[in-house]
Amino acid sequence: DMALRHYTLDFSLSTAGKMIPGLLSIFHEQEMTETVHDTNGHGYLATFVGKNGRLVILRVHSHGLVTIDLQCYEDDNIAQLDNLLNALEKKLKVLLNGNITRIKRLPALVRGAKVDRYWPTADGRLIEYDIDRVVYEEDSAYQNIKILHSQQFGNILVLNGDVNLAESDLAYTQAIIGSGKENYAGKEVLILGGGDGGILAEVVKQKPKMITMKVIDGCRTHMRKTCGNILDNLKGDCYQVIEDCVPVLKKYVQEGRMFDYVINDLTAVPISTEPEEDSTWEFLRLILDLSIKVLHPAGKYFTQGNSVNLTEALSQYEEQLGKLSCPVDFSKEVVCVPSYLELWVFYTIWKK
Amino acid sequence: DMALRHYTLDFSLSTAGKMIPGLLSIFHEQEMTETVHDTNGHGYLATFVGKNGRLVILRVHSHGLVTIDLQCYEDDNIAQLDNLLNALEKKLKVLLNGNITRIKRLPALVRGAKVDRYWPTADGRLIEYDIDRVVYEEDSAYQNIKILHSQQFGNILVLNGDVNLAESDLAYTQAIIGSGKENYAGKEVLILGGGDGGILAEVVKQKPKMITMKVIDGCRTHMRKTCGNILDNLKGDCYQVIEDCVPVLKKYVQEGRMFDYVINDLTAVPISTEPEEDSTWEFLRLILDLSIKVLHPAGKYFTQGNSVNLTEALSQYEEQLGKLSCPVDFSKEVVCVPSYLELWVFYTIWKK
Repeated sequence: DMALRHYTLDFSLSTAGKMIPGLLSIFHEQEMTETVHDTNGHGYLATFVGKNGRLVILRVHSHGLVTIDLQCYEDDNIAQLDNLLNALEKKLKVLLNGNITRIKRLPALVRGAKVDRYWPTADGRLIEYDIDRVVYEEDSAYQNIKILHSQQFGNILVLNGDVNLAESDLAYTQAIIGSGKENYAGKEVLILGGGDGGILAEVVKQKPKMITMKVIDGCRTHMRKTCGNILDNLKGDCYQVIEDCVPVLKKYVQEGRMFDYVINDLTAVPISTEPEEDSTWEFLRLILDLSIKVLHPAGKYFTQGNSVNLTEALSQYEEQLGKLSCPVDFSKEVVCVPSYLELWVFYTIWKK
Repeated sequence: DMALRHYTLDFSLSTAGKMIPGLLSIFHEQEMTETVHDTNGHGYLATFVGKNGRLVILRVHSHGLVTIDLQCYEDDNIAQLDNLLNALEKKLKVLLNGNITRIKRLPALVRGAKVDRYWPTADGRLIEYDIDRVVYEEDSAYQNIKILHSQQFGNILVLNGDVNLAESDLAYTQAIIGSGKENYAGKEVLILGGGDGGILAEVVKQKPKMITMKVIDGCRTHMRKTCGNILDNLKGDCYQVIEDCVPVLKKYVQEGRMFDYVINDLTAVPISTEPEEDSTWEFLRLILDLSIKVLHPAGKYFTQGNSVNLTEALSQYEEQLGKLSCPVDFSKEVVCVPSYLELWVFYTIWKK
């Protein structure tokens, strides 16, 4: 594993920055080759190349910021590099004495590692997970499926690069089945998606009549804390697993079949595009419309929204709810799902 | 606000990487000045400097990794830079066709911004918060105190750079007062720390006899969702606020005063050093020993531990518990505190 470790060390200054000649000796001592670049008046920029793949970029920006980048290989002497960064920080503290408003030294970014630990949140923030190994990886016809092991969250299901569910996330399953306020005993329940088996495992405890759809390979074996043994058989006393949900939903509409609960765990609210132009929104509307058609007049429809920070996408979703052929009302709840590292919105929808 | 945006785009390859001449035209079109560096056999390294402060570092590492860094100023044309990165990604996909095992493009690191969004977890992971403004900042005699506003978590108290508590974190307060399993009515309660007022606000609802200590300036005004109006008066029917807890604890020991509950919210378990050599551990042992001395034989002592991932530090703490002058037993609970972005351990300690 020859990943690149990328350190950053930044000094914010209260006045404009100037070149710092006193700093250069540290790099010269490291026997690094210096190149000073012409920046067309955008401050001082020098690069230093070492013999072992080390690279340092020193920038003194003209508006009062000093940035240092240090790249090295994973098999380099990391303790020595920590010392080098300590020496740099110490020397700059002295040289910039009285002029510093902030010193920021971040944990090293590890690039190109065998096990990737960076999975941004839905609202686009940079997040490093405590992932130590890849448990399962598979490209299905629909998506890239990964199961990654986290020290604290257990196995995490990652679909197309989005964190979907971890073994720590009972809070997700509880929220999407109504936060403990529903009684499923003897009820007709339709689960759309829920490929990890978590919803099925929880709802089955209450002995409903039920149908479920779609299973994600790998979850049965690697998400046992979530699904228990429920996915070991694709048909049980009160449930069955079906491949594709759209034709089945259409058949139910034709037959006039009704459900007390529809739980849609297929997709989060799409975030990047306009509802009119995007195939994900089109799919979402199709499922929503069919689901409401098979929902008992006194029934409830549960689904996830998205990150509480994505207010625009959530508003667009709520607008779609106003355009259904059958008028509906809705409520929403904000829930902390441990492995998401952002608060998540869940919807309850019912017929007016 | 002239922060530096730092983009990374990395390609992991299944075979050794070679220089990619076809890529250079993209940078030449941008009228960037190219420098090719001698790396002493550690792959290809070129830097490109633009006229507007832009800098690109292109490395083709010899073991099968291509890394691209792009730095620009916050006031640059960000849409144009996104296009440049899209073009680079597209072209590299073609040039490296069939040889790519992973493409990783992270959210830009924003360096030197007026409002700092990067607050690593206790277990040392890089985390970007959704912080949009600084609400309060103050250097007290003991620590640097910041209150930062997060879109999703509300105001966050940050002490010496560590996320301490957010308005979203009732889960923390509930965990450190016993997770709803205790009855505080009429009980003698001693709160150590708890400067945000959250513990006081919750426990007072149950009408105990109580004493509390230390208040953090700024929380009264800016953490209202946590403390309510409890800190508006420094002395109430069943509580008082005292400046320094060590002399008061020593006085209680001398007087033989006993408490039904001692809640220690002063510090987390120290992580970096040996218990024998560190003043934080020394302080922790002092407080622990005095606290157990004033604890009723049937009483309970509650405290936070640290990140569940810091197994070594937690073991060291548990070792300390075995060395107290009065023998104790303990249990622990793992809790999801929303703003922490890591699971947190809480301890319950009682006399054997």
